[in-house]
Amino acid sequence: MVEPIVLYEIPGTPSATAPTGSWNPNCWKTRYTLNIKALPYRTVWVEYPDIETLYKKVGAEAVEKKADGSPYYTLPAIYDPNTKKFVAESAAIARYLDKAYPESHTIIPQDTDALHAAFAVAYLKVLYGGDHLRSLTMSASQAALRPPSAEYFLKTREAMYGSFDEFAPKGSEKRGKHWEGLREIYRTLAGWLEADGRKDRLFFMGERISFADVSVAGFLWWIRRMFGEESDEWKEITGWDEGRWKRFMDAFAEYEAVDVGSDVEL
Amino acid sequence: MVEPIVLYEIPGTPSATAPTGSWNPNCWKTRYTLNIKALPYRTVWVEYPDIETLYKKVGAEAVEKKADGSPYYTLPAIYDPNTKKFVAESAAIARYLDKAYPESHTIIPQDTDALHAAFAVAYLKVLYGGDHLRSLTMSASQAALRPPSAEYFLKTREAMYGSFDEFAPKGSEKRGKHWEGLREIYRTLAGWLEADGRKDRLFFMGERISFADVSVAGFLWWIRRMFGEESDEWKEITGWDEGRWKRFMDAFAEYEAVDVGSDVEL
Repeated sequence: MVEPIVLYEIPGTPSATAPTGSWNPNCWKTRYTLNIKALPYRTVWVEYPDIETLYKKVGAEAVEKKADGSPYYTLPAIYDPNTKKFVAESAAIARYLDKAYPESHTIIPQDTDALHAAFAVAYLKVLYGGDHLRSLTMSASQAALRPPSAEYFLKTREAMYGSFDEFAPKGSEKRGKHWEGLREIYRTLAGWLEADGRKDRLFFMGERISFADVSVAGFLWWIRRMFGEESDEWKEITGWDEGRWKRFMDAFAEYEAVDVGSDVEL
Repeated sequence: MVEPIVLYEIPGTPSATAPTGSWNPNCWKTRYTLNIKALPYRTVWVEYPDIETLYKKVGAEAVEKKADGSPYYTLPAIYDPNTKKFVAESAAIARYLDKAYPESHTIIPQDTDALHAAFAVAYLKVLYGGDHLRSLTMSASQAALRPPSAEYFLKTREAMYGSFDEFAPKGSEKRGKHWEGLREIYRTLAGWLEADGRKDRLFFMGERISFADVSVAGFLWWIRRMFGEESDEWKEITGWDEGRWKRFMDAFAEYEAVDVGSDVEL
């Protein structure tokens, strides 16, 4: 490899746990993937309203569709100057990198590829089957964005999910219910990890990190950022399932390097 | 191993594709598992209304719960006279057999156990997220049961899903919609199998059969029985996804032995 891969990521405002302003959980799946693979890359920050422009500039088609069938331009995406390829969507990026750089840590072992595809469906169902995660973090999520994205996020998310005032503010009765819902999400994931009775299975594949773990870690990274590392919420989460999620995130600590990056030029 | 394992299964009426009257898709997951593992076993037929009595006789607790929280007594279950263990639920049985008989074909390799647990959630969501499968097969399903189970099935299923008259009879407009839904289920499964672009991945883990495949095969076996092997429906299904499901079921043909079995004595 000669030139570093470009990671396109949505920026947020700097915080204690994200001094460079890194923000988006799905982008973190790709950041973890790149860091675990130890591939050289640099971050290019793209505000929400600029994502579509970026896709059009590089001549890429949207991978996903909105409910009305129109193209849904999302990040993460990467551009690999060594192969001249633009790839979007964290799992597709993982598969691309596994193929393009076979000497790096394989994040989706071939014999688990189809199981990983099914995992993505199950994980999404558990994570967003109820509105608990969204309700607990939507306001903090919006508050952690820089102005152009914050405005865009508020407008588009309120159109999708209703007024932010209806989400569960601290101290509200609703919040208790959604907190229980969040608890249940992680109880379910722990249940998968311990399905055969092995309490000590830290990663989905046992000893080695695979993309299923990265998918879980991306969101835990984001939840930790939303609540704050010193918050009561994060302390409670790290105590769940006999401390499993603390051990889990401790194992990911070495893969959390973030470069300063640069803003996209369009 | 000295004595054959007992497989408790719900019987149906004999048919061309199920001359012994074997009927239930979830029980077929266990039958395939036992046949693939080449473990000696014998079938004991248990009618629906007798399942609870069987559990109580052997002193087992229900694994699942009904919507109202009361115990839900289900088959398949096995009794292993060599270890004196009664185990219910097809995935739990698979895990038990992998541990108890490690020299047999491992159906859930340890490093995929957690991914298999997630697969079960995704598969169930795809299979029963819509009511397509149920609507297309409910009447045939009931008609293929012996009298005590047929009566029980009709009563309990109508209480859960409404009158059988409302399901999609042949030639109805509804049926077309549900057929499209069934098509989409298998398109989704094929999509998982081909997620990395490998069209030739027949089984979830590539070359070797694992419990994810057995879960898919159990239901295809049942669908084939419901429509009939010579039916237009089955012919259409075996043409879907470039003949994938024909090749898939052809590979399972050698694991479809059914013993005559005996009726349960309670």
